[in-house]
Amino acid sequence: MARMSSCVAFDLGIQIAVYATATDPEPVEFMTPHVTRSSFDNLEDMITFAKSCDIVTLENEFIDSDLLLKMRDESGTPLYPSPETFKLIENKKIEKETFEKAGIPVTPYALVSSKEDMIAFGTEHGWPYLLKSSKGGYDGYGNETVKDIDNAVEAFTKLGGTQGREILAEAYVNFRKELAVQVARNKHGVQVYPCCETIQENHICVAVLSPAAIDPSLQIKVQELAIAATEAIDGKGIFAYEFFLTEDDEILLNESAPRPHNSGHYTIEGCATSQFGNHVRAVMDLPLGSTELRRPTAAMINVLGTQKRRPSQIDNYEDVMKASDAHLHFYGKLQSKVGRKMGHMTLLGDDLDETYKLAQKLTKNIEI
Amino acid sequence: MARMSSCVAFDLGIQIAVYATATDPEPVEFMTPHVTRSSFDNLEDMITFAKSCDIVTLENEFIDSDLLLKMRDESGTPLYPSPETFKLIENKKIEKETFEKAGIPVTPYALVSSKEDMIAFGTEHGWPYLLKSSKGGYDGYGNETVKDIDNAVEAFTKLGGTQGREILAEAYVNFRKELAVQVARNKHGVQVYPCCETIQENHICVAVLSPAAIDPSLQIKVQELAIAATEAIDGKGIFAYEFFLTEDDEILLNESAPRPHNSGHYTIEGCATSQFGNHVRAVMDLPLGSTELRRPTAAMINVLGTQKRRPSQIDNYEDVMKASDAHLHFYGKLQSKVGRKMGHMTLLGDDLDETYKLAQKLTKNIEI
Repeated sequence: MARMSSCVAFDLGIQIAVYATATDPEPVEFMTPHVTRSSFDNLEDMITFAKSCDIVTLENEFIDSDLLLKMRDESGTPLYPSPETFKLIENKKIEKETFEKAGIPVTPYALVSSKEDMIAFGTEHGWPYLLKSSKGGYDGYGNETVKDIDNAVEAFTKLGGTQGREILAEAYVNFRKELAVQVARNKHGVQVYPCCETIQENHICVAVLSPAAIDPSLQIKVQELAIAATEAIDGKGIFAYEFFLTEDDEILLNESAPRPHNSGHYTIEGCATSQFGNHVRAVMDLPLGSTELRRPTAAMINVLGTQKRRPSQIDNYEDVMKASDAHLHFYGKLQSKVGRKMGHMTLLGDDLDETYKLAQKLTKNIEI
Repeated sequence: MARMSSCVAFDLGIQIAVYATATDPEPVEFMTPHVTRSSFDNLEDMITFAKSCDIVTLENEFIDSDLLLKMRDESGTPLYPSPETFKLIENKKIEKETFEKAGIPVTPYALVSSKEDMIAFGTEHGWPYLLKSSKGGYDGYGNETVKDIDNAVEAFTKLGGTQGREILAEAYVNFRKELAVQVARNKHGVQVYPCCETIQENHICVAVLSPAAIDPSLQIKVQELAIAATEAIDGKGIFAYEFFLTEDDEILLNESAPRPHNSGHYTIEGCATSQFGNHVRAVMDLPLGSTELRRPTAAMINVLGTQKRRPSQIDNYEDVMKASDAHLHFYGKLQSKVGRKMGHMTLLGDDLDETYKLAQKLTKNIEI
């Protein structure tokens, strides 16, 4: 995703530098001559890197906030979202407490550190429920659904509970929809994106529909909660929030991300200013841009890997390129594998159902 | 402009390499680790560069087509637009002959090589008229308006006529509007952009309005001529054409450019697929994208340098960033100077006059 933020920066005459840590070169490393390859264990490299920049941002919430604090304070380079914000969301327990304190309903949860705790949680909130490690987790990794106590004990070990990792139990919510909202915020104010619906299969987001097909009053309520959440963590940057809409129209905050998010990819063509545009504006304290939809509806389909290939390649995508107001993005990751997010396609249209159906049809033969 | 094409390429998972020849680093050089700094006198470097690429394109029509032919044939790397196309447009006389042969009306012209020729041209077509060098020329450089024969003799010398440069006389056209159209073409077919109006001050384009406020039948005629011109040069890529609309609704082709063009910058946000998007698609033989307007009208304002500064900087641009569906682009050129194209702003709207007026108001205080 750093790719898209970089293009926005280029378009404002800004140069970018990348601090890369993955073994495989990331696509954004081919978009600048300024690449530092190191790790997040190397504070010295992080500080040297930060000193070479006018401002630092990140699209990754898995770096310890204490380390970010040291990098910022020892380099003297502004870092947004701030380490103080990261401190409030890097641990799922603290995150939930922070949001609860701000009056935002979250899914019922408790820390569990023993078999007894897990039995007690199941008794109170019912089986199945979820076990999560307090720190880390992405696309369902670091999350386990447990059906009974044997299951729970096994998952607890798998998640590192027996090795001292903090494990959180979370009640399983019978939701009728999963919703998401992105919020940009800085000294100029706040801009909130439409409330969209995310469609998951096997814990992976496969599609996003915007705006969500729910009552407008519910859409507004979700947007308000997302703004309140951003204020609760004093967020400066772009933030994404995922919510459950329960069978009885209760809205529960499920997860937050302090960065451009897959649920907001449709905003690239779908909104007057994309989430990436407002990310760059927000962290640089520029006036935020309008989030209004360009067309009545947008459907985003994640293009997931269909096979293992290196270098990755995309085939059978001609239908998308020919379709009107269909926008294909291929990320250029070196390695494709089954189920990996390799790209996405956004289709804009007037009717949500029709647009979604056409979007599925256009992408269904893509091989990647 | 290579910046914008590069961002489109990145978004299709394509890496870019740059062959840079300017003394000052160009903005696009900060967008890739793959930069060759050399000159167009160095065929060996050009061939080595081309060999390192899967495909080469250029956004510059001032390189000798014979050199391009050698680069392509000796590297074996495809080059589009092709050297054969460049050969037909690099010399203004051959270009005009080519278009005339295809039935496209052009402004009256003649080669002039003596005082007598210049007197004769003035007698036939009236004074003032234009003198142009057959090769080169950009934003009015290489063009001289001459009012009488003394003027003409002076301009002839200034343009290099006495040193053997081929000089073309061109009748001065009393036009009521200047129009432009971009055309993308490859094996999949052709896509034509709306007919827009360009507004010039001192031979510099200051604004573009799309679609042009002229009769729809005239718009279509201009688009048809632009397509015919692209076919006449067997163009593969994106091409821009500038036309004069005379007082009696005659349409004359004035200039062509085998690349994304300032007159098409509004297409970035104004059309479903931008001129840069279709440039990349065209040269890679991908299906071309829709050129339909996203909103009824678009007004693009060129943001010209207001002072000499290095590094360049932009001030008083907050109004643009706050406005709805206004899109500021700042190119990041190192050096600003008065009148240099430093960026542009596109405003989308429903009414052309209102949109243009607001666009002017939003940009008028920008210091750059």
